[in-house]
Amino acid sequence: MSNLENADALVISSDPLHPANLIPELCRSFYQLGWVTGTGGGICIRVGDKVFIAPSGVQKERIEPTHIFVLPYPQAAPSPHTDRVFLRRPAKNLKESACTPLFWNSFDLRKAGSCIHTHSQHAVMATLLWTGPVFTISHQEMIKGVRVGGTGAALSYLDALEIPIIENTPNEEDLKDSMADAMIKYPNAAGVLVRRHGVYVWGNDWEKAKTQTECLDYLFEIAVKMKLAGIPTLLNEVN
Amino acid sequence: MSNLENADALVISSDPLHPANLIPELCRSFYQLGWVTGTGGGICIRVGDKVFIAPSGVQKERIEPTHIFVLPYPQAAPSPHTDRVFLRRPAKNLKESACTPLFWNSFDLRKAGSCIHTHSQHAVMATLLWTGPVFTISHQEMIKGVRVGGTGAALSYLDALEIPIIENTPNEEDLKDSMADAMIKYPNAAGVLVRRHGVYVWGNDWEKAKTQTECLDYLFEIAVKMKLAGIPTLLNEVN
Amino acid sequence: MSNLENADALVISSDPLHPANLIPELCRSFYQLGWVTGTGGGICIRVGDKVFIAPSGVQKERIEPTHIFVLPYPQAAPSPHTDRVFLRRPAKNLKESACTPLFWNSFDLRKAGSCIHTHSQHAVMATLLWTGPVFTISHQEMIKGVRVGGTGAALSYLDALEIPIIENTPNEEDLKDSMADAMIKYPNAAGVLVRRHGVYVWGNDWEKAKTQTECLDYLFEIAVKMKLAGIPTLLNEVN
Amino acid sequence: MSNLENADALVISSDPLHPANLIPELCRSFYQLGWVTGTGGGICIRVGDKVFIAPSGVQKERIEPTHIFVLPYPQAAPSPHTDRVFLRRPAKNLKESACTPLFWNSFDLRKAGSCIHTHSQHAVMATLLWTGPVFTISHQEMIKGVRVGGTGAALSYLDALEIPIIENTPNEEDLKDSMADAMIKYPNAAGVLVRRHGVYVWGNDWEKAKTQTECLDYLFEIAVKMKLAGIPTLLNEVN
Repeated sequence: MSNLENADALVISSDPLHPANLIPELCRSFYQLGWVTGTGGGICIRVGDKVFIAPSGVQKERIEPTHIFVLPYPQAAPSPHTDRVFLRRPAKNLKESACTPLFWNSFDLRKAGSCIHTHSQHAVMATLLWTGPVFTISHQEMIKGVRVGGTGAALSYLDALEIPIIENTPNEEDLKDSMADAMIKYPNAAGVLVRRHGVYVWGNDWEKAKTQTECLDYLFEIAVKMKLAGIPTLLNEVN
Repeated sequence: MSNLENADALVISSDPLHPANLIPELCRSFYQLGWVTGTGGGICIRVGDKVFIAPSGVQKERIEPTHIFVLPYPQAAPSPHTDRVFLRRPAKNLKESACTPLFWNSFDLRKAGSCIHTHSQHAVMATLLWTGPVFTISHQEMIKGVRVGGTGAALSYLDALEIPIIENTPNEEDLKDSMADAMIKYPNAAGVLVRRHGVYVWGNDWEKAKTQTECLDYLFEIAVKMKLAGIPTLLNEVN
Repeated sequence: MSNLENADALVISSDPLHPANLIPELCRSFYQLGWVTGTGGGICIRVGDKVFIAPSGVQKERIEPTHIFVLPYPQAAPSPHTDRVFLRRPAKNLKESACTPLFWNSFDLRKAGSCIHTHSQHAVMATLLWTGPVFTISHQEMIKGVRVGGTGAALSYLDALEIPIIENTPNEEDLKDSMADAMIKYPNAAGVLVRRHGVYVWGNDWEKAKTQTECLDYLFEIAVKMKLAGIPTLLNEVN
Repeated sequence: MSNLENADALVISSDPLHPANLIPELCRSFYQLGWVTGTGGGICIRVGDKVFIAPSGVQKERIEPTHIFVLPYPQAAPSPHTDRVFLRRPAKNLKESACTPLFWNSFDLRKAGSCIHTHSQHAVMATLLWTGPVFTISHQEMIKGVRVGGTGAALSYLDALEIPIIENTPNEEDLKDSMADAMIKYPNAAGVLVRRHGVYVWGNDWEKAKTQTECLDYLFEIAVKMKLAGIPTLLNEVN
């Protein structure tokens, strides 16, 4: 294990924008937003061939840089329960985020540089009020902050937003295949909602992943308010 | 009293994770969440044979480490109105939290290491919309953040959550027996709701008590939203 | 004016609990709670024969100790538009809070040591849903955080809370007489609601005024939620 | 470009009230209020013949003073897509806010010293519940915090507030003409709502623009609550 222990340099940096510093800072901010309470949710950042991932089952607002895992990318057979290869593990007795195989979907299928998972109640309420396989809204300015497929060109105000909804499973890892299926079926979607659970959103880098998560969360929130007020969320005259 | 005054060392530590430092920090955070406004609510931490408890009737976001009481555990006859034994009392003219006998229930009946009491409006609204003796919800990811009986194994997504609701009394101390009765009748419950008042939640340590309080508060909040939107909170196909 | 300028010592102190330091700090906190946005609302603190008051029409979250007015108490004829006597005026071109004559009601009629005025939407919504001259709620734990008349003994859980509602006037100062009338008619009330405007709450000192404002704001908020959900806020079996 | 690079002195100041320091600070505060998430919204400040503007499409809570653009005022032909004249551009590859031509409306038509744009959900919900060309509310104390036309005398409690609503366009710049038309048609309005998008609010200086935005946002929020609760927002007896 000495190689892994020597690998501490991978998470020690005085640069506040280093992924090992950003992940704790962003998780504190997400906690304030109600996205990652009760140890839920999280964020990963991929820089080239290295993926930085937070631990599982910890208070997300109290993560330290030294708690961060570093994994090489790509690696073979990223199936849910395969043993993973690490460049660095924390000294503490921690386990990498249970979201790891789902984050991997965003790298493999969309070449994403970052993926965020929240338990936002706006996302969950959207999955309860949109009972089918897809959430839709149109004619909202905030749609323009979302990119086609999460990593492409920006959507227009005239584009209707579609986010697929998959059914939850008892083990988070087991969402991998249905999330991948939804990403393939909805290639333009910037995220995947998980019914009664939350949302996964990705982007080319952490800024894009974060701002797209903010836009989608805003859209889930206002769509829920509109639905409960009897206002249609999808107008027919969409181009 | 000189023994008690000399006991100040029990609450002076440079370690931010010392209970006398944690309680003020956590209470400030709980204030931001709306859980302990108006002097209500609080948290206690037990480390082995010592229990750290905040004062009663003070602004919870302005507690200082020197305001913390330390009591030996166990101690005989922890009935509501019995005189208590202290290892340390604050110099200021303060009284220990009125929740003390209720916190004791969590130690005696569940071997908890920490217990949290909030006046969260989500908890109170849940007790108003669930008019019977128990709050229930199923098929929510956040259920997985709660442990059986508060200190056992984690619940599964397929487990329905049950939290008993007891009736409020004019004096907080007088909730001791009905809370204990509910804990015995619902051995799997991680907390006890008090109608028109709030909730008590415990765990093996302060991290578990806090994250479980976050999960339960999230579940009360979304359950209230679901109920008001006409969405069932308990699905029949629960295993 | 040199006496007044020399009076700067009245607002310069290294003690964070000095009224000239507390008022800015508390106003920042009230801003976060949404109580004093848009320059509305405020707090005054009386220490014996000196009253510390914030300026009118300024951003309440950006007050500095040097902006604070100090007035002697008592002073003759505190009618709405009478010239007031000052112990200290800020050097800047500021005017004392338009709430001054209303704050004075709490000193003259209840011997209060502090009075808080908020534009909280919970208070305003309560005045819109309770269309008569009084807001009432019973059987809520948070009622216990309120004192009889604001400065007396604590209410019991079995006491119904009553807060009179007065009608708004174009000029804040003109509320003085109707507020005084309501305080005389409802001697047990710890505050006065102003329809379509907000609430005044007082206490023996700033801690009591603040925690009672928190309790009342909590009660307005939950009462509004209950009313909108069709849940009665006043139970018949009140003692 | 050396002139522009030398122009860095325009945005470097130790004064916290310098526009290049204020814009980042205020944007962080607006982010906390949910006004500028997902890179949306912003603020500009004009001091005499210089206009300070934030960049477009960036995280508004992470702006640095060195990211600020400075433009001379007035300048010819401020049409939406005209090339603009700058006194200073950031070294980074940034583009000035897409709101620039709309901010210009507030300078040209109202001599404003600052203009704020938010995506507040209260504003958007108001545009969905008020389906016509104008939002109205009367008899709310917070109306007194708004000035006639944004830069004139303060409104009275007896004045009904009117804010015109214009229809959104795919490109923000293309709102320029319809916003100007609305400002001319409603000369007393302190802001312009954009349907399914947000609001523009201006004032004589940044303090006035900010406090008026707070007042309007408060009024949008409470008007939406009132409308959903079936309470009329416009009383007939308005003077």
